[in-house]
Amino acid sequence: MTYPKIPLAQTVVQLCKAKHIKHIVISPGSRNAPLTIGFTHDPFFKCYSIVDERCAAFFALGIAQQLQEPTAVVCTSGSALLNYYPAVAEAYYSDIPLVVLSADRPKHLIGVGDGQTINQKNVFENHILYSANLKLDLKDEKHVPEHEELPLLKNLEDKFERLLGLQKDIQTHNEEETNLAINFARFKNGPVHINVPFDEPLYETVDTLSVTPKVIDVKTKPVKIEDYVLQSCLEDWNSASKKMILVGVNGPNQIEKKWLDELAEDDSVIVLTETTSNLHHPSFFPSIDQLIAPLTDKEKQELQPDILVTFGGLIVSKKIKQLLRKHKPKHHWHIDNKKANDTFFCLDTHIEKAPNAFFELFLPRVTHYVKSNYKPTWTAVKQSRLNKHKVYLERIPFSDFKVFSTVLKTIPNHYILQSGNSSTIRYTQLFKIDKTLKVFCNRGTSGIDGSTSTAIGCAVANKKPTVCITGDLSFLYDSNALWNSHIPKNFRIIVMNNQGGGIFRILPGHKNTENFDTYFETNHRLTANHLCDMYGFKYESASDELSLESALKTFYSEADQPKLLEVFTPKNINDQVLLDYFEFLK
Amino acid sequence: MTYPKIPLAQTVVQLCKAKHIKHIVISPGSRNAPLTIGFTHDPFFKCYSIVDERCAAFFALGIAQQLQEPTAVVCTSGSALLNYYPAVAEAYYSDIPLVVLSADRPKHLIGVGDGQTINQKNVFENHILYSANLKLDLKDEKHVPEHEELPLLKNLEDKFERLLGLQKDIQTHNEEETNLAINFARFKNGPVHINVPFDEPLYETVDTLSVTPKVIDVKTKPVKIEDYVLQSCLEDWNSASKKMILVGVNGPNQIEKKWLDELAEDDSVIVLTETTSNLHHPSFFPSIDQLIAPLTDKEKQELQPDILVTFGGLIVSKKIKQLLRKHKPKHHWHIDNKKANDTFFCLDTHIEKAPNAFFELFLPRVTHYVKSNYKPTWTAVKQSRLNKHKVYLERIPFSDFKVFSTVLKTIPNHYILQSGNSSTIRYTQLFKIDKTLKVFCNRGTSGIDGSTSTAIGCAVANKKPTVCITGDLSFLYDSNALWNSHIPKNFRIIVMNNQGGGIFRILPGHKNTENFDTYFETNHRLTANHLCDMYGFKYESASDELSLESALKTFYSEADQPKLLEVFTPKNINDQVLLDYFEFLK
Repeated sequence: MTYPKIPLAQTVVQLCKAKHIKHIVISPGSRNAPLTIGFTHDPFFKCYSIVDERCAAFFALGIAQQLQEPTAVVCTSGSALLNYYPAVAEAYYSDIPLVVLSADRPKHLIGVGDGQTINQKNVFENHILYSANLKLDLKDEKHVPEHEELPLLKNLEDKFERLLGLQKDIQTHNEEETNLAINFARFKNGPVHINVPFDEPLYETVDTLSVTPKVIDVKTKPVKIEDYVLQSCLEDWNSASKKMILVGVNGPNQIEKKWLDELAEDDSVIVLTETTSNLHHPSFFPSIDQLIAPLTDKEKQELQPDILVTFGGLIVSKKIKQLLRKHKPKHHWHIDNKKANDTFFCLDTHIEKAPNAFFELFLPRVTHYVKSNYKPTWTAVKQSRLNKHKVYLERIPFSDFKVFSTVLKTIPNHYILQSGNSSTIRYTQLFKIDKTLKVFCNRGTSGIDGSTSTAIGCAVANKKPTVCITGDLSFLYDSNALWNSHIPKNFRIIVMNNQGGGIFRILPGHKNTENFDTYFETNHRLTANHLCDMYGFKYESASDELSLESALKTFYSEADQPKLLEVFTPKNINDQVLLDYFEFLK
Repeated sequence: MTYPKIPLAQTVVQLCKAKHIKHIVISPGSRNAPLTIGFTHDPFFKCYSIVDERCAAFFALGIAQQLQEPTAVVCTSGSALLNYYPAVAEAYYSDIPLVVLSADRPKHLIGVGDGQTINQKNVFENHILYSANLKLDLKDEKHVPEHEELPLLKNLEDKFERLLGLQKDIQTHNEEETNLAINFARFKNGPVHINVPFDEPLYETVDTLSVTPKVIDVKTKPVKIEDYVLQSCLEDWNSASKKMILVGVNGPNQIEKKWLDELAEDDSVIVLTETTSNLHHPSFFPSIDQLIAPLTDKEKQELQPDILVTFGGLIVSKKIKQLLRKHKPKHHWHIDNKKANDTFFCLDTHIEKAPNAFFELFLPRVTHYVKSNYKPTWTAVKQSRLNKHKVYLERIPFSDFKVFSTVLKTIPNHYILQSGNSSTIRYTQLFKIDKTLKVFCNRGTSGIDGSTSTAIGCAVANKKPTVCITGDLSFLYDSNALWNSHIPKNFRIIVMNNQGGGIFRILPGHKNTENFDTYFETNHRLTANHLCDMYGFKYESASDELSLESALKTFYSEADQPKLLEVFTPKNINDQVLLDYFEFLK
């Protein structure tokens, strides 16, 4: 097999292999050639080439999100690395194991005015689990004098390092740091950065490995919940007649059905889910904003739980956050084996367990259901909302609201739905979606910057039919996502084109002034048509109910290229239809 | 006039105005509404709306590069800010005053799982002159309890801050920090970050200002060069028969002609310039690689100067860096009032002056020209190279090399040339360009990521005819640059499309394998055609000499839309033509 000659490149590649990092997203460059050579010549790795590093990192994020396995991105030195940052931050807040491998120049060539050279060390400091700063291989040192002599000062520094750290110590340092970083990514679920300096020559290869890096594993032992904590939780639980379970971003099939069924039976418990919770039960409350938007302050007080239990990632609904911050539960427990956000300023218990493990420990010890009107009352409210929702839908014109209803209803079963942020996910939350759909959305930073790239990464990793629904600004922002030769034929995009940032029309701005149109809504007349021609997508469009229904009839059928459906909605009425909806629900 | 109600927004906007920051590039968002309202309602400011923050920041960089005045970018909270990073790093290494204004959530809403919330404080730490972290207005505090009660701990923290820092102190802190940051940008020439937390409501306006922020000016006094330093420099200068002046990135008209003329007369001095030096004199040496690439080691030793004087920014030519690192001058002086890179590992004198100021002090005291064959010898070499260059050009087929020759020759006088990085700037360096052209290139980080956006910002700020020459990968990378409603009709783009990263074919990789084509050269069959249709550019293309010459005849003539010329070159011969060129020169 062909290996890069530089031992440090061998070390990094071999450790990635030993730690089962299979998917490697590579952006072109010269400094990273030793890593590229190493990854692409070993059939163990599945490599992808993506030029725009911003898209490359979101693509890798989509892979890691699906596989729940560390996924690597590899780039050259300089500003290339900085383009990873939006996806790194998303991975940080969404607990996704993204491994950033950046090539760098040797230390003596940093800060002296060389090209494509920045200060890469710890550059993601604010949003990274671990930054490993590897050191230049000393085996490689013979190359240095060949093309330049080090200056006196640098030479002394370097010699000092050689004295302190012999070859073996540097190798050990690099092995340990690489192990540590990858272990962090895997066991703490998040992004890590491994910065790897290489000196020229960069393109030399060898037939046998010259290093056998040590693989360091992590022994994790589950955190034990103290018995008195469990006891105290049980006591509170058994005496509370209003318990609310609120689920944030949660992967499909992560919670065992028996626990859901058990929670669904208890009249003192209501389970509020979001589209991104991937939890379905007829007794649950899936459209939070629909339920609570029309509530008077008195009704909100009635909804206020004694105990709030949360699990999963970030919550989409702003309305429930506002409600619970104002009408605080007596107790807030968050179940997560990594962290607990004090989202409602009343967190009192962080249960350091995976939800299943906690339910397994906890629910069997709940000996009786507390008699309560809590769920029956709110089930009645929910039913009334659903009836009104139905009536409302029938009387409104073609608009974002109506289109979301139609589009969400017609996604074939078992599809993966990748939702864009902003309006898209907020509208989606208002509708019931089929329980066989698996829903994902970059809620870590809730950015509009990488939704399409993430969706493509997901589709590639999962090999399942995937549809990405996104707004026009978000789609255009990430248009380079389509510059990707790995997009499967069964991938679908639906662009909700309301000619600007429709969400701003709903906010309390100053609509219909030139100032608003330009700086808030950001009006445009662009379509996705040309991008589809450019990147080989079949393009379809719709601008009324008839054309939408007609397009949707064949949109998901097999094709020899991926497809994009652009739905044009009337920007001047979309906001009113939505605001009237919440009025109508009252 | 309409002002944002929030005093902190007034403070920031008023200080930008007082400090003559005129150009404001705004990306849409809600959290930044108070700033957007403030900037867009005051006719003092020239505001631009650009959605993709990566492009927005490079666009602003192009404005600041031209005007040499602080230019602001304004974004909402969350990952939006991170998309600025590539341009921030470029500004850092290119000494361009870019002022980043990011809206943020109030402190108590950070790290609790709110949407679009990251850890923005000091996020550009590695590449920023100053980070001002402003504090939430206390005048604004009445709004907090309206929609949420703070939790006990947060409440205590907050109260503590209120006790320590009364309203006036926070206002003073914010004023001082904002002043400091903008002063840094202006007087130290580089990027600064001002992070501005706002609480809701964000959209309220008032008719009169409620604050009058204090404007703090900087008194700068020029650094005096110690007399003994000057004396020692003079002594060395007067006794050295081989003096080389090497100029990096240097703005047009920055060096007085009389100093250039004086340097040009001295036979012991050779002045090596790059295309990005914007310096022209018949006696100078403008094509460094052409001059030195064919040199034997012995000849390189002959070129080795006794004294190397550098000024300007980063050097493009790798060959001159290698030569001078190997054949070090006895002395290296760098003239710059801000910083001195030890690019050749032999810097002994940092002259903290602007070049003009130093020459004014120094050159009149040079009493005689040292008798020397240095310049005559190398002028003869230069002439021989130019002759061979001419002969070579006539015998080669249509290729990158030939196209650059034709394209550069036909740029109309007085144009601004914005060059992409990588191959584009390296080819450009090999040709003589008209002395009326003004040349710019993002050499700070030498990234391929924002060249088109920078060029558009330049064209907008300068109002002069501007042509951007860029490679296909670089153009596609920054394709969102065209998503910009401010592009002037006289703006021109020339895309050198060699179907991938042509530069990699020149490097010592393993050409013409699938692995190389995919992961290094990154082959593609994309064209700029569709993007032109999408964004209203007139598209033209050429793929041989005839069509190129024909296209260039009318390319620069007036039109009612900006134009793009895409030149397709044969990727399989481009590298050989270039390598043969350096052979032929010998």
